[in-house]
Amino acid sequence: MNIIRTIRAMTSWSERLRRESVIIGFVPTMGALHDGHRALIQAARRRCDALVVSIFVNQAQFGPREDLTRYPRPIAKDRALCREEGVDVCFEPTADVMYPEGFQTVVTLPEIARRWEGEARPHHFPGVATVVTKLFGMVRPHLALFGQKDYQQAALVRQLVKDLNLGVEIEVRPTVREADGLAMSSRNVYLNADERMVAPWLSRALRTGKQAIEGGMKDGAAIERSMRKAIEQAPAIHVEYLAVCNPDSLEPLSSVTHRAVILGAIRIGSIRLIDNLLVNAPARKSRARR
Amino acid sequence: MNIIRTIRAMTSWSERLRRESVIIGFVPTMGALHDGHRALIQAARRRCDALVVSIFVNQAQFGPREDLTRYPRPIAKDRALCREEGVDVCFEPTADVMYPEGFQTVVTLPEIARRWEGEARPHHFPGVATVVTKLFGMVRPHLALFGQKDYQQAALVRQLVKDLNLGVEIEVRPTVREADGLAMSSRNVYLNADERMVAPWLSRALRTGKQAIEGGMKDGAAIERSMRKAIEQAPAIHVEYLAVCNPDSLEPLSSVTHRAVILGAIRIGSIRLIDNLLVNAPARKSRARR
Repeated sequence: MNIIRTIRAMTSWSERLRRESVIIGFVPTMGALHDGHRALIQAARRRCDALVVSIFVNQAQFGPREDLTRYPRPIAKDRALCREEGVDVCFEPTADVMYPEGFQTVVTLPEIARRWEGEARPHHFPGVATVVTKLFGMVRPHLALFGQKDYQQAALVRQLVKDLNLGVEIEVRPTVREADGLAMSSRNVYLNADERMVAPWLSRALRTGKQAIEGGMKDGAAIERSMRKAIEQAPAIHVEYLAVCNPDSLEPLSSVTHRAVILGAIRIGSIRLIDNLLVNAPARKSRARR
Repeated sequence: MNIIRTIRAMTSWSERLRRESVIIGFVPTMGALHDGHRALIQAARRRCDALVVSIFVNQAQFGPREDLTRYPRPIAKDRALCREEGVDVCFEPTADVMYPEGFQTVVTLPEIARRWEGEARPHHFPGVATVVTKLFGMVRPHLALFGQKDYQQAALVRQLVKDLNLGVEIEVRPTVREADGLAMSSRNVYLNADERMVAPWLSRALRTGKQAIEGGMKDGAAIERSMRKAIEQAPAIHVEYLAVCNPDSLEPLSSVTHRAVILGAIRIGSIRLIDNLLVNAPARKSRARR
């Protein structure tokens, strides 16, 4: 496995392979790799000839009071996972390389970033959109893979690629979960034993909402109430949002008649967790004759 | 010459040539081509194997009260010029292709766009940065050429390409002028005979500033006053700005000791004209011994 740190080396590696019609897959990460990342890497490995994983803790997507400095950085372990999974290049740009003096460009998607994570973390999505555009420029992949766990991020990246004609296919892979339903996340390491115990209630609440929809409940507000009621049983959880939304626009649905995404964010102490589930409303029954 | 209207056709043309290591040059335009564009195209022709000119009147870079609808669109004449100059592809995307429903991404460069044209036309540079990013994604050139006449735009594009790692070399070519010094611009066709008579006073004022600097004047404010005094002689001109600036940051210089760019914008009736000159301060004389 090559470890590449400079943009020039990364781009010339990719350009050479592209001239040889090699299909390049890309999994951008902030490191602290877990089985969710592993699943992305494996899926990319199956679809591509050459595979790049980037590890870059992107300060631009953290707010001033967020967890940038304590974000986990187990680089040796991350590289070992990449090697195990047959990654060709581990791309590890430094902050200086990514954001040199004079850097100022910002990429924003005002509609898709307006609600939910965008509202809770106003720096987040401009930071994500900008770094993804940059990484795609450096790595020049044919295909890039993102996890469904960050649903709004994946939706934003899809729209970004379409809007800026970046020419990269985006594949979003299902969330990988612990046995008790907790969505895997690099931030789960922050949870102490008590917090870890209650954390799966987020996914339980989402499942409550999913089951309500599958059972025929259509009213968005009622579905949200059922989820809040479910999670109220858990101690020490502060709900930021639990919402039933259009899976493309992420706007809340007053009535769930087709596909929906249920988005949730909670805080346990100082730790913020997000999760989501896609759901299909049951097919409408044919109307009884009058 | 190919006329291409779709993104897919444009990108696959370029990708095929890139795989064959053909060097692709690109001159993005809003049409209404004049000898300034011709000089860009000729310079590109000399440096590249394959040459794309785009013609797209980009509504995103016009303000709500600007001249979008009356902007000249002499497409047959433009294509003839491209054919004459050996252009390989005339890329003519429509507004629907460029900005389909749901489009929302905006690329901004807050520092370089803060002053001058960015202040006078707040929609302008986000529109330029966004469309240039998109066009580079569609055309995938190795080299793109811009005219010095739009100095701030060229500076913005350079920074954009660097910041987003777009991997396109930017070449800025000197402004082409009419015999009386007026910088060529598609907007010059708006000038009636009287307005056309006074229009060259903008370039005369800039030359006054240049000569003052070359003559040893260092004080930025004094140089600006000399330019204002020069242009006061012309009737019917409203000066928007005449400024001596750092050629990279575009911040005004209080003292001109090295390179500078003199930027100017005027209005004649409803027509806005801009121009600029690069200038080198004379080398500092060695100090007399005391």
